[in-house]
Amino acid sequence: MFDAPNTKIKNIDIAIVGFGNVGRSLAKLIVYKRQVLEDKFNLRINVKAIFDSKGAVVKEEGFSNYELLKLTEIPRSKISEFENGLRGASLKEIYDKIKPNIHVELTPSNYIDGEPSTSNILTALNLDCNVVTATKSPLVLHYDEIFSLTKKKGLKVKFRGTVMGGTPFIDLLMSLKSYEIIKVEGILNATTNFILSTMYEKLISYEQALAEAKAIGVAEADPSIDIKGIDAAAKLIIIGRLLGKRISLDKVERDDISKLTLNDIINSIKENRVIKYIATIDESSASVKLRSLEKSDPLANINGTTNAVRIVTDSGDLFFVGKGGGGMETAHSVLDDIISIGVSS
Amino acid sequence: MFDAPNTKIKNIDIAIVGFGNVGRSLAKLIVYKRQVLEDKFNLRINVKAIFDSKGAVVKEEGFSNYELLKLTEIPRSKISEFENGLRGASLKEIYDKIKPNIHVELTPSNYIDGEPSTSNILTALNLDCNVVTATKSPLVLHYDEIFSLTKKKGLKVKFRGTVMGGTPFIDLLMSLKSYEIIKVEGILNATTNFILSTMYEKLISYEQALAEAKAIGVAEADPSIDIKGIDAAAKLIIIGRLLGKRISLDKVERDDISKLTLNDIINSIKENRVIKYIATIDESSASVKLRSLEKSDPLANINGTTNAVRIVTDSGDLFFVGKGGGGMETAHSVLDDIISIGVSS
Repeated sequence: MFDAPNTKIKNIDIAIVGFGNVGRSLAKLIVYKRQVLEDKFNLRINVKAIFDSKGAVVKEEGFSNYELLKLTEIPRSKISEFENGLRGASLKEIYDKIKPNIHVELTPSNYIDGEPSTSNILTALNLDCNVVTATKSPLVLHYDEIFSLTKKKGLKVKFRGTVMGGTPFIDLLMSLKSYEIIKVEGILNATTNFILSTMYEKLISYEQALAEAKAIGVAEADPSIDIKGIDAAAKLIIIGRLLGKRISLDKVERDDISKLTLNDIINSIKENRVIKYIATIDESSASVKLRSLEKSDPLANINGTTNAVRIVTDSGDLFFVGKGGGGMETAHSVLDDIISIGVSS
Repeated sequence: MFDAPNTKIKNIDIAIVGFGNVGRSLAKLIVYKRQVLEDKFNLRINVKAIFDSKGAVVKEEGFSNYELLKLTEIPRSKISEFENGLRGASLKEIYDKIKPNIHVELTPSNYIDGEPSTSNILTALNLDCNVVTATKSPLVLHYDEIFSLTKKKGLKVKFRGTVMGGTPFIDLLMSLKSYEIIKVEGILNATTNFILSTMYEKLISYEQALAEAKAIGVAEADPSIDIKGIDAAAKLIIIGRLLGKRISLDKVERDDISKLTLNDIINSIKENRVIKYIATIDESSASVKLRSLEKSDPLANINGTTNAVRIVTDSGDLFFVGKGGGGMETAHSVLDDIISIGVSS
């Protein structure tokens, strides 16, 4: 109520769907950056609804900073128990009421059928709502359907959080308009790179390194999406789409890194080489493979949860390094997508 | 005349001002990429005029591929001797006739008064023409004037070619919307990095390394802009503008790399360190300094004409490596800027 009237401020109303690690980081980031965004972009981001797997909370005038911070402290899947919470609320009913400008999809990826994220995104688009997604599976499994609806509706779907989530890699790749992209290769999965780096650093087995990764929250309880290369393959498929290539998940050749032994690591050290889990897409193929690199290869020196990618173009190579994920990092990319839509809408 | 009528194709008429290395590369690149740009972006880029320091050639219907390639073979400053060439032609007179959508400024940087590029750009803007510039000095010396006119006219000025010219670094930095940029530091000048790398590789003196750089065209006959750090400082000033900082050239602390001796190099090798010429901008200062780096620093491993930059943000570091310049590389950035304006206009 101390706000001076400022007619230049544009309100961007959003709904956050999926309220785990990234969703909560996004809520905190919006609180933390609110003033900066108003000053720098004349945007006021109002969170009008938040959904988790069990229900939703809705506030038509938008949650206050204090409410957003309180919401981030509620246990997982309990958001509907907050004041004015709704159990089993439908996206359509709520969106009809709050009419958000941007639907923010942050539910977990599901590579079996792409749900619930695909239906959420299609529902939002049908209700004339732009979309920002950090969830990969809808793009991997239903890209054509989503983007033909997006185009038909004249809306925007942004997804910077899906690949190298803590960086603007997607924007970087899309900005190379006149370049021919010959190959993109890199370390695209933070969990497996952490496991590999830890095996080298401590000379421990795969199982021990995985246990360490789980202990500090870098690996999930069921890490199979990461260690089987599915996560990296999904990212390659999204990269492929940006390059005009249509690849399905089963066409990406994948190594399982759990087959790697401490002996393999020791042998590579003796040969002055480093084994890395490299995702590659080029003209004819896509793969996620254990590769033995020379120590001088920049990719050989990327450790921990850091990601890196080499873009080979007809006008030289680009090499790009940054955080591959993490709640706050991915939330930053999601927020940047929200701002992009906000300033251009 | 074999073109099928395609109503979706948008014509983008450009004038190239400055026809040295980058200008000629741009002409070749437009010929080489013409079909791709039509297929991918529905854009047809017509070069309607080319200016050099002595005159211009103009063709209202746009130069054919064959004519563009022939023009790239004409000796420097002789373009007005081509058929229909005009000696001492004025930008305004020609633009009144050809009404280009985009003025492409590729004249050399001039840090004394910013001319002729500043006047060229202001003239173009006043004639309602968007601008793409790879020339740094107008942005370094007359940023406010250029951008207030740009805003008033509702036009666009793009300048990806000015920093890390062979890469989309400028776009990358601008895409970090919600990040606080704490520091940007890197190797931003190709000539001096080549000289330094050559001193290490061949254990030769600064003078010998400079001679090698001149011999292969990496250093100009008068390399003072590079070796005094003026080029890198200019790039820092442009980066600073993107970060909302206003710095003047004389406020950038600069080392002169010609003071570096072979002894300095040898001593650093003994200490297992590497001397690099690092441009840095942070909250309070900007500098271009010789710095002794640990060998493990990624910047220590960037050699030859490659550039690299570390962006320190409140959400982790990004590290970006690519070609820092070169005719064809910079022309690629210029072409991408032209496409950006083309697709959004």
